[in-house]
Amino acid sequence: MKRTKIIDLLNMRPSQVTTPPLPSERGAGGEVTVCAKGWVRSKRGSKGIFFIALNDGSTIKNIQIVGEDQNFDEATVKLITTGACISVEGKLVESPAAGQAVEIQATKIEVLGVCDATYPMQKKGQTFEYMRQHAHMRLRTNTFGAIMRIRHNMAMAIHTYFHEHGFFYFHTPLITASDCEGAGNMFQVTTKNLYDLKKDKDGKIIYDDDFFGEQTSLTVSGQLEGELGATALGAIYTFGPTFRAENSNTPRHLAEFWMIEPEVAFLDQEELMDLEEDFIKYCVRWALDHCQDDLAFLNQMIDKTLLERLQGVLKEEFVRLPYTEGINILQEAIKNGKKFEFPCNWGDDLASEHERYLVEEHFKRPVIMTDYPTAIKSFYMKQNAPVTVPEGSPEGASGSPEGASGSPEGSIGYRGCIAPGPTMQGTDVLFPSIGEIIGGSVREESLDKLMNEIERRGMDRSHLEWYIDTRRWGSCPHAGFGLGFERLILFVTGMQNIRDVIPFPRTPKNAAF
Amino acid sequence: MKRTKIIDLLNMRPSQVTTPPLPSERGAGGEVTVCAKGWVRSKRGSKGIFFIALNDGSTIKNIQIVGEDQNFDEATVKLITTGACISVEGKLVESPAAGQAVEIQATKIEVLGVCDATYPMQKKGQTFEYMRQHAHMRLRTNTFGAIMRIRHNMAMAIHTYFHEHGFFYFHTPLITASDCEGAGNMFQVTTKNLYDLKKDKDGKIIYDDDFFGEQTSLTVSGQLEGELGATALGAIYTFGPTFRAENSNTPRHLAEFWMIEPEVAFLDQEELMDLEEDFIKYCVRWALDHCQDDLAFLNQMIDKTLLERLQGVLKEEFVRLPYTEGINILQEAIKNGKKFEFPCNWGDDLASEHERYLVEEHFKRPVIMTDYPTAIKSFYMKQNAPVTVPEGSPEGASGSPEGASGSPEGSIGYRGCIAPGPTMQGTDVLFPSIGEIIGGSVREESLDKLMNEIERRGMDRSHLEWYIDTRRWGSCPHAGFGLGFERLILFVTGMQNIRDVIPFPRTPKNAAF
Repeated sequence: MKRTKIIDLLNMRPSQVTTPPLPSERGAGGEVTVCAKGWVRSKRGSKGIFFIALNDGSTIKNIQIVGEDQNFDEATVKLITTGACISVEGKLVESPAAGQAVEIQATKIEVLGVCDATYPMQKKGQTFEYMRQHAHMRLRTNTFGAIMRIRHNMAMAIHTYFHEHGFFYFHTPLITASDCEGAGNMFQVTTKNLYDLKKDKDGKIIYDDDFFGEQTSLTVSGQLEGELGATALGAIYTFGPTFRAENSNTPRHLAEFWMIEPEVAFLDQEELMDLEEDFIKYCVRWALDHCQDDLAFLNQMIDKTLLERLQGVLKEEFVRLPYTEGINILQEAIKNGKKFEFPCNWGDDLASEHERYLVEEHFKRPVIMTDYPTAIKSFYMKQNAPVTVPEGSPEGASGSPEGASGSPEGSIGYRGCIAPGPTMQGTDVLFPSIGEIIGGSVREESLDKLMNEIERRGMDRSHLEWYIDTRRWGSCPHAGFGLGFERLILFVTGMQNIRDVIPFPRTPKNAAF
Repeated sequence: MKRTKIIDLLNMRPSQVTTPPLPSERGAGGEVTVCAKGWVRSKRGSKGIFFIALNDGSTIKNIQIVGEDQNFDEATVKLITTGACISVEGKLVESPAAGQAVEIQATKIEVLGVCDATYPMQKKGQTFEYMRQHAHMRLRTNTFGAIMRIRHNMAMAIHTYFHEHGFFYFHTPLITASDCEGAGNMFQVTTKNLYDLKKDKDGKIIYDDDFFGEQTSLTVSGQLEGELGATALGAIYTFGPTFRAENSNTPRHLAEFWMIEPEVAFLDQEELMDLEEDFIKYCVRWALDHCQDDLAFLNQMIDKTLLERLQGVLKEEFVRLPYTEGINILQEAIKNGKKFEFPCNWGDDLASEHERYLVEEHFKRPVIMTDYPTAIKSFYMKQNAPVTVPEGSPEGASGSPEGASGSPEGSIGYRGCIAPGPTMQGTDVLFPSIGEIIGGSVREESLDKLMNEIERRGMDRSHLEWYIDTRRWGSCPHAGFGLGFERLILFVTGMQNIRDVIPFPRTPKNAAF
């Protein structure tokens, strides 16, 4: 007979089940016969009766199967071990046990796939480190089932949000001959025979016989191509894999991860911040609305402050804070005795400790930091208007304005904040517990300013002409941001290691599965 | 003032617009003032009045802007050229012109980005070949705007379908140390210094200093990892980039393309076909429901039978046809004078001409072909039960049963169809105009049969142990299919070249943008 998913069985009430289309059968006595299939989470027995907790991945909850030994072949019952895959037919009845509305009184059990004691997910309380080594089997545990269902829901929230707001999903290429902002090391992609590398007379490898006829790598960001989409379709978003060949063995780095990069024409800095805040609140709300059971489990087993932290994000408006003001707050804190490991003078890239101080201690809510010094941000960001900073100006924070060296000019940014050096219209979102979750900015739409910045940084323009073309013909103001998908999943699940929120992590020396 | 998207402006009726939240202003005389921003598709003028067709990518339709020369600075009006980006404020009024309900009587125009005569998308009627060379600018044309909006909608249809049916979006890795079914050439991924390749004493390259400590490539399919997800979460789907390093310069091949691969536990062959048919009809219906304007444009400009073909798919049930019966039909056609370029004896992989004959000429509707000879399909497919084929059996098709050489045994498959050799439970969907659009199968869940098949084919098991583990512990029947996303977009748009349905195609010697 037709199987019903356990999530649906648990929502059925025997007294309410009537006839098809519900996949059940009602016997002469009015009883409802159902079929469940899944994996045995546990089996226990007492006085000739056995109880199976069965899970099929559709929900974190198990359905209880009750059977009498005498009704079943002894050999079959012996094969019903933890991890075994079984098919059960039986009567769906109100359950006398606490914590479950219904259970199945089994009339027929078939073992579809046996599972012996070598099964690596046999025991409870295994470490995450152990489970990572069995990443293909950890998916069958409660914790990883919950994480993967939440991961799905977050992807769905993202697609739904953008679709409802008129953004188009835009597939930027993974294999690229350009290097977006020279961000870190890249993976080379090649079909060359490494045993017979053709070289020119200077000993340089020749790539004209490589698949693409030139040297190619895996992309570190789809943003530049995303801008091509936005300046044609109005509003796009990417959602795809991104790669960094950094040898970082930390709980926060993956060599292969998923990024979401929306890009919108005609958006200014204020509207960009509105978008960032609205978007991320939508995702968190979706999790609270659609993943109650899984979140309740994680809140109980992984992080008892998880639900509170998620609800906290929704409650209040994010603080919008120019970098220069942020530096002032941090300097003030230092004056008052706060100790940081890293320096935080104007011009420094903030460390995680600084971001977390602002978010968790000073403001106690998410912060959107704006108007970063030019020197610590990317070439494509929109430059703020230059102003002359009066000497001893209260807005000019202490520390050396590195980005402005040799120039008397500061800049004016968000809400009129005056900085002691050139700044750009960045808008990064800083979150409790994980720090930067979104990196955003208005893009420089002026052809001249963009070209000057590329030149000033000594960048190679030869692979960027197509990008510059967007400013050459019909240039338009636009803005966008990037969200590391796994960072979002870390935040929403309360997990601590990024390797535990993606099915098969890619990290240094590890491409297993 | 706040900009309104053109798709929303075109749906506004001046008489119905009242107050905010609509982003418009009503003057003392009751008139509604709006702001539109976008790119100039064309401008014409006559007797002191100019007309601009403005597009912002939100819809294929332009909004008409009407202005009087005398109200504007002459220099500004001169800069309003095809491709320029402008901001317009004005009164939204009922339009006297045919084909549009409203237009804007401009009171203020700002040129945000000029566009001179070097703009490559200046002229109408440019060839697709020409536009491919300017793939970053072709996005601003009607045709490619339509294709990209449809592409977005098809992605949204896919996510929505699976979400509503309880599937979880599952991210399988792109970088892999395994080679799924040895499918074609792969791209190598490496961080090794190609100028200083470490080799062992036999001259073999050593990979222990490569990023992952072993040789890695870009995946050709996420299916095997998808099976790990399905046998834990019950039902998953992948939707991600996939790579083939085949030197195929055809209108049907990309080196980087997007694949959708659902995988479901406890699904049999009949249910798999139900899923395939229901899924693809859902996608086509979504296109007809959500992309009317874009489809109407493509139906008029690209392929006048497009809408008819899309509606045709929805009308009838797909034919479910065992391969062996298909061969019989083709042989019968040959007897009756039909000429094919390639042979089609039992055991042959069908060519596109055979598939299209069955779909377009014989049945005149989509066909799901089942139960292929083992020899032409992959190792992971579920084997049909062996039977002895009586000599001269009418079911045994003509031609040499290649897959069964040396064996007196045939096999029994879908609807009891007897084949003259071993067959597997494949279920490929063949479509009019494009041939195979889906490749699916039930997977072999028996550990012994799977191991035997891997051995029989001489495959290297060392990188497949994790896959085999799914059959070792709690194995379960399951099935799934793969859909090439760009094939679907070709079908839904009526475009002929796969390079025109992805923003930036990757093909031999081309990794531009």
